[in-house]
Parts: sequence; C-alpha cells; structure tokens
Amino acid sequence: MKLPVLEIFGPTIQGEGMVIGRKTMFVRTAGCDYSCSWCDSKFTWDGSEKDAIQMMEPEEIRDALLEKGGDHFGHVTLSGGNPGLLRQIDELVDLLHDHQIKVALETQGSRWQDWFTKIDDLTLSPKPPSSGMKTNFDTLDFIIESLQQEQQGDFSLKVVIFDQDDLHYATNLHLRYPAVTLYLQVGNDEIETDNNENLVGHLLDKYERLIDQVMESSVLKDVRVLPQLHTYLWGNKRGV
Amino acid sequence: MKLPVLEIFGPTIQGEGMVIGRKTMFVRTAGCDYSCSWCDSKFTWDGSEKDAIQMMEPEEIRDALLEKGGDHFGHVTLSGGNPGLLRQIDELVDLLHDHQIKVALETQGSRWQDWFTKIDDLTLSPKPPSSGMKTNFDTLDFIIESLQQEQQGDFSLKVVIFDQDDLHYATNLHLRYPAVTLYLQVGNDEIETDNNENLVGHLLDKYERLIDQVMESSVLKDVRVLPQLHTYLWGNKRGV
Repeated sequence: MKLPVLEIFGPTIQGEGMVIGRKTMFVRTAGCDYSCSWCDSKFTWDGSEKDAIQMMEPEEIRDALLEKGGDHFGHVTLSGGNPGLLRQIDELVDLLHDHQIKVALETQGSRWQDWFTKIDDLTLSPKPPSSGMKTNFDTLDFIIESLQQEQQGDFSLKVVIFDQDDLHYATNLHLRYPAVTLYLQVGNDEIETDNNENLVGHLLDKYERLIDQVMESSVLKDVRVLPQLHTYLWGNKRGV
Repeated sequence: MKLPVLEIFGPTIQGEGMVIGRKTMFVRTAGCDYSCSWCDSKFTWDGSEKDAIQMMEPEEIRDALLEKGGDHFGHVTLSGGNPGLLRQIDELVDLLHDHQIKVALETQGSRWQDWFTKIDDLTLSPKPPSSGMKTNFDTLDFIIESLQQEQQGDFSLKVVIFDQDDLHYATNLHLRYPAVTLYLQVGNDEIETDNNENLVGHLLDKYERLIDQVMESSVLKDVRVLPQLHTYLWGNKRGV
C-alpha cells in the first residue's frame, strides 16, 4: 500500500486553478505517464531524483502532513507527476477526510481511479499540442461522465496555453464539455530562470495577450483566465 | 425604475475574489453609503463625477452590455459604489438571466435586497477598521442567514487587508461565519501611482507578507488569499 512521494510541503497557497489562493499543503507523488516538453516538475519522472523518492504508507503521509502543518491547515493538494496513476491514494483520501481535511487532486485525466469521486477539488488538465502529448478522448470522456454522475466535490478542466494551437485545443475542449468550468492558464516558458523580476514582467505580458485573445472569442465565454501566482511570488523555486 | 450608472465596460477578466479570472462585463453604479479611506472608486460617491452619472432603465443597461460585449460574454458583474442600495436592480438581473447571462454582485453587506437571492456569484465585502467604517453586524447576520436559506447561487465573504487590525477583524469574521468561504485580499495603498512596475513589486511584497501571516494562523484555515490581478496587469487604470 506504499506511495512514491517526492515532496511534502506547506502550508502555502495554491497558486493556480480552481482553488487559486487556497491555503493548502502539498503532497507531490513521483511517476508520470506523460513527459510534457515544458513540464515544470520533470524531476518527478525523468529519473534525476529517483533516489529521493520515499515509499510511504498513507498513515505516514498523514503523519508527515500533521507534523509539518500542525493545526494550521484544512486542505491538502495531491500533485505530481500524475497521482492519478496510484490506486493506493484511496486510503490517504479517507484518512485525511477523517481529520476533516479536504483533498484536491491535479491530474491530466489519462487514467481513471474510483477514488476520484471522493476528491473535493479535482482539476483535470489535459495537455495541449505544445506539450508533445496526445489526449485520449475516450478516456477523458469516461472520466468526465463518471465525475458528472458520481463525484461528491467540484471538478474543473484546466489547460495551459503556450501558443495558438493550444488555444484552439482549449476551444474545442470547451465545445466538447460545455458544462465543465474551464480554466486557461498562462504557460511558463522560462522554467530555468532565476531572475524573478524579469520573469514576472514576461509572464504578465503573456497573461495580457492571452486575456486579449479570450476576450475576442465568442466560444470561450464561461471561462477563467489565470496566472500561476506562486511564480509571481517565488519564481521557479521549489517547495513553496 | 432608472439606475444611476457610471461605467459599463468589458469584456475583461474579474481581477479579484470568488470568480477571479472569470470573463465578465462590468456595470458600475454610482452612490455609496460608505466612504472608505482607501476606496479605489471614490468617484462613485465623492461628487467628482456627478455629471457623468447616466440614469438608465434596466433594458437600456442590457442593450448597452450587448452592444459592447456582443456574443462574447456570459457573465456580468455589478459593482459600485454599493449596488446593494438599489432596489431597481431586480429587473436588470431578470433581464440578464433571460439572456442566459450570469450575474455577480459586489457589496459591503450593509443593506439587504430581495434580489440578492437571485445573484449567481455574490461577494459580501464588509470593511475592516482601516477603512474608517463600522460594520453593522445585525444587518450582516441577517444577510448571511437569508442567503444561507434562500440563495440560488454562490456567495462568499471578502476582506481587504491593510494592517494587523484588519487581519484581526477578518479572523473574527471567519469565527462568526465559519461556513462561508473567506477571501483575504491584499489592500492597494498606492491608488494614485502610475508607475505600474513599481506597483507590482510593492503589491507582491505585501501579498507575500499577508500569506506568511495567514499560514501561521490556526483559525484562518479554510481561506483564500488573493491579489487584485487587474492591478498587476493594468495598474490603477480605469475601465479595464
């Protein structure tokens, strides 16, 4: 029942997506079925930190969270890699719920797990063409239909936008799943820089251009356009 | 049935609060029962733009929105001033709903209106001590109880934070209304500057300090800490 864990940190704010700004703890699992060209967490799947992976029981993860976060948090975000690969997370979700802690999940939606229905804030982030990955829409259709029928919490779609093809992909996604709230997120194409001030200016320029394009669209109506706030605050630093 | 309108603009993004990032149109009404020391829209109540107020029928407002926004929007935000003073907004909300347009409201929660129950995204933003205003908690209690019983959409609390007393006020508010999602927002204390780059740096510093304080709190658990994104993008410019 052990889970491969690379980072446990917080409390901090969730910097993006449907619970942007929310006080949360993060559990980052290792392993991914994707290898996106612009992934900002390549260390979770490229082998570079293989030796840092800790195999932890759900109880150990809960204890580590409580040790780090004390009584200062009521929300945990499961991120990766792709935590959606791990059947064993089921028990961790139950343990956290036992402590009245809500659970968020970030996954690309390439695999289904029954425990998805228990997640409080579920973000499905299928990857647009610039990632180099290909969406399996049969799987995504199944996941979204299942969530619409059974999920107890909220869920949303999120697409990171780097170029025109990505925006086109997001537009088609919105047409395919019109009832699901869609978040468009500015892609960070400077994941190596440590010049935070330049990075903020650069990302704000890109954010404004993305807003301009979305405002022109008659399809992208019920959408939210957001930055990654943690990048504005802390640049590309990890563990914050 | 006419409404005092000072600005109609968009589509743009909602820069703050519960629908941050949402594509929306804005209708800004004139008139306020408050006069907050740091108000960023003093022109709505200080008489300086009295001659610019247009008295408009709800149908005229709807037509102006459709003319400006075409078929590119599905959401309208009513802001002020305090739109909660205006009984006549009822008809405007119905007209927008007839067009499948959702309606958000921003009000300090100093007055009740029956049409609050029809609002899709209602933000109550009682003002903390730094504003110089005093919250009438009997009224706010009544509004929150009424919304909890009758409102069809979502609602949340939002407090702008300038100093320690404000954070203390927000903490007590969270204890008084624990079931209502609380948004904490970084106060903009540079509402006159036109140096956008310095403003962003200054506000990010303040944002980080506010996050640090909230992370330390064992009361402020289920909260969201957010900036005003429009200020990062466009500084203190109006009508964006």
